[in-house]
Amino acid sequence: MSVFGESQVDRLTNKLNETPQRITAETVAEAAKVSRAAVSRAFNPDAPLKPEKRASILKIAEELGYVPDRAARALVTRRTHLVGMIVPDVCSPWESQEIDALTTALQAEGFATLLFKTRTDFSMDETLLAYMRGFNPDSVIAFTENVRPHILSRFLDRAVPIYINYLMDEEPADGVRAREPEALYDRIDVDQWEGMEQAVALLAGYGCRRIAYLSGKRDSLAEQARRRTLEVLMARRGLTPPIIIPGDFSYDAGHAGTLDLFRVGEGADAIFAANDESAFGALDALRYELKRRVPEDVKVVGFDDISQSHWRSYNLTTVKVDLEARTRALVRLILRRLKDPAAPALSETVRTRLVVRGTVG
Amino acid sequence: MSVFGESQVDRLTNKLNETPQRITAETVAEAAKVSRAAVSRAFNPDAPLKPEKRASILKIAEELGYVPDRAARALVTRRTHLVGMIVPDVCSPWESQEIDALTTALQAEGFATLLFKTRTDFSMDETLLAYMRGFNPDSVIAFTENVRPHILSRFLDRAVPIYINYLMDEEPADGVRAREPEALYDRIDVDQWEGMEQAVALLAGYGCRRIAYLSGKRDSLAEQARRRTLEVLMARRGLTPPIIIPGDFSYDAGHAGTLDLFRVGEGADAIFAANDESAFGALDALRYELKRRVPEDVKVVGFDDISQSHWRSYNLTTVKVDLEARTRALVRLILRRLKDPAAPALSETVRTRLVVRGTVG
Repeated sequence: MSVFGESQVDRLTNKLNETPQRITAETVAEAAKVSRAAVSRAFNPDAPLKPEKRASILKIAEELGYVPDRAARALVTRRTHLVGMIVPDVCSPWESQEIDALTTALQAEGFATLLFKTRTDFSMDETLLAYMRGFNPDSVIAFTENVRPHILSRFLDRAVPIYINYLMDEEPADGVRAREPEALYDRIDVDQWEGMEQAVALLAGYGCRRIAYLSGKRDSLAEQARRRTLEVLMARRGLTPPIIIPGDFSYDAGHAGTLDLFRVGEGADAIFAANDESAFGALDALRYELKRRVPEDVKVVGFDDISQSHWRSYNLTTVKVDLEARTRALVRLILRRLKDPAAPALSETVRTRLVVRGTVG
Repeated sequence: MSVFGESQVDRLTNKLNETPQRITAETVAEAAKVSRAAVSRAFNPDAPLKPEKRASILKIAEELGYVPDRAARALVTRRTHLVGMIVPDVCSPWESQEIDALTTALQAEGFATLLFKTRTDFSMDETLLAYMRGFNPDSVIAFTENVRPHILSRFLDRAVPIYINYLMDEEPADGVRAREPEALYDRIDVDQWEGMEQAVALLAGYGCRRIAYLSGKRDSLAEQARRRTLEVLMARRGLTPPIIIPGDFSYDAGHAGTLDLFRVGEGADAIFAANDESAFGALDALRYELKRRVPEDVKVVGFDDISQSHWRSYNLTTVKVDLEARTRALVRLILRRLKDPAAPALSETVRTRLVVRGTVG
């Protein structure tokens, strides 16, 4: 069964029995007649290595019982190869698509994703963060609306967190950093202005005058940034301020809020939703309960472009966040920070654009 | 700022400076005048502890710079408190709901979820598993359709994997174990029979005779179990075997396959889909492209009961897998296995039932 002579296995096995040490990558490299680096690469999926060479190294490693134990390595290198991700809601379509893309990209670089669920209730965060710190992640990805940087920085002595931050308007407001000057963190800025401006222009072009904003969770910074951006964009076009429909990013709140607006309130000729999922709730309320035609009577725009938005029942016009670009930028920030832990705060900007489908037109 | 006297902090700090050891939980316990166990609980969110006591311990731990380093602890206790989860598709609605429920439940027990993405292409699995093994998880959750037990067992010397297994019919077939006798693994059996029988009875009760089965991915064991169960159930009622619509669990394949069945093939008076997401594709094709009324002309049943299934546009009748019961059972299996690593293989069964909504009736 062995790809190299039994005597060689015996010799190495005896050597290991004599010295009760862990089997190291060097032992495997010696047996496989390859470099130490090749052994490392063999255990890292997607690291460049010829398939036959990888298969041969893994086979020898298995026969020797070698495991690249990261717990042991972590104490020496201070690297755990774990990237923590703090999310409130793994199963929301947008977040699950983010986690999926990021896990794939991190795995290709030799990292694993460690999930931590938080709530928007800030009272719990400190306990969660202390708990997370115990796993000693190399990096932590967080959203400004879930964990404030000055809280996170107290719990991470080594990892520099990466924040996903929503810009308020077209000037790089740098809002969060301005409020939290003491904490060092790297940042992805999502520039919502461009895509939202395209959406407002399209609605105005179709003659919409009564535009409602279906809001997200009140405490969310993404929500606040989207609402503020919409108000500025509409004011610049001389439109009356948006009618606010209270929401919380969920389908059910979008559905209920839209019913209220048309049954109790004065209605609207367009609804701009803070995310796609709540836009689906608004669409279903308009079509099924309120018997309004979309887009003829009421136009609907969402935000995110989740994969469900192209489904025929919704076919939603929406502001797309470029998830692929955002994932690449996140991985770049993680690798750059690990290479130079003392570098000043790094940031990258991700753009948005309008995807026009059937709910406006 | 300190909750205890500065001199005490100084004394402890000096003591630590003299002896260049890591700050231990014992040091924190001494300073906080609590037990060692209380310090542990303070760092475990949801472990029972009075809020004031937790706050006080965390504050003192922070002042002392104490971090419960799991990498260091793992070498002593052989416990990493990591639970690996091998999934092919984090962002599918069903899997993301599973990951969410499991992460919440594991966090409450002091474990963190480590995500590994695999493909149904088995060629990659060995590399991925070797990679995962390096993180030394305490437990690994896998689906039989993604990773075969005999492959996984070669890569996990310590953790006993937990398999999620779909039963073929009403007798506990124990199919996977029968085929892989050498590997020890704990198991969740999903008994699909009961919910599927209810669905077939309902369709038969409404007079459906030409029932189509919209399949999942061909290699999936969940798919094979659902198809086989449906064939047996229909044969027992004297119905002709289901017409097979090739699918892959996706919305797009469900949509395209349904178009083919009605435009090229002979159509059907009911479609039983292998999962909810592909049922949505079938529904949209029937309503928008084929101008069929659901449920009047064609009835549709799904499988899973994802949160999107109650959305007004779909309002899908579906076979519900009890996710809450399944999550509880998984956590129970993990804890029982860690308590007794040598116990014989453990298993629990999760039931299914029909949820009747608007697409049959």
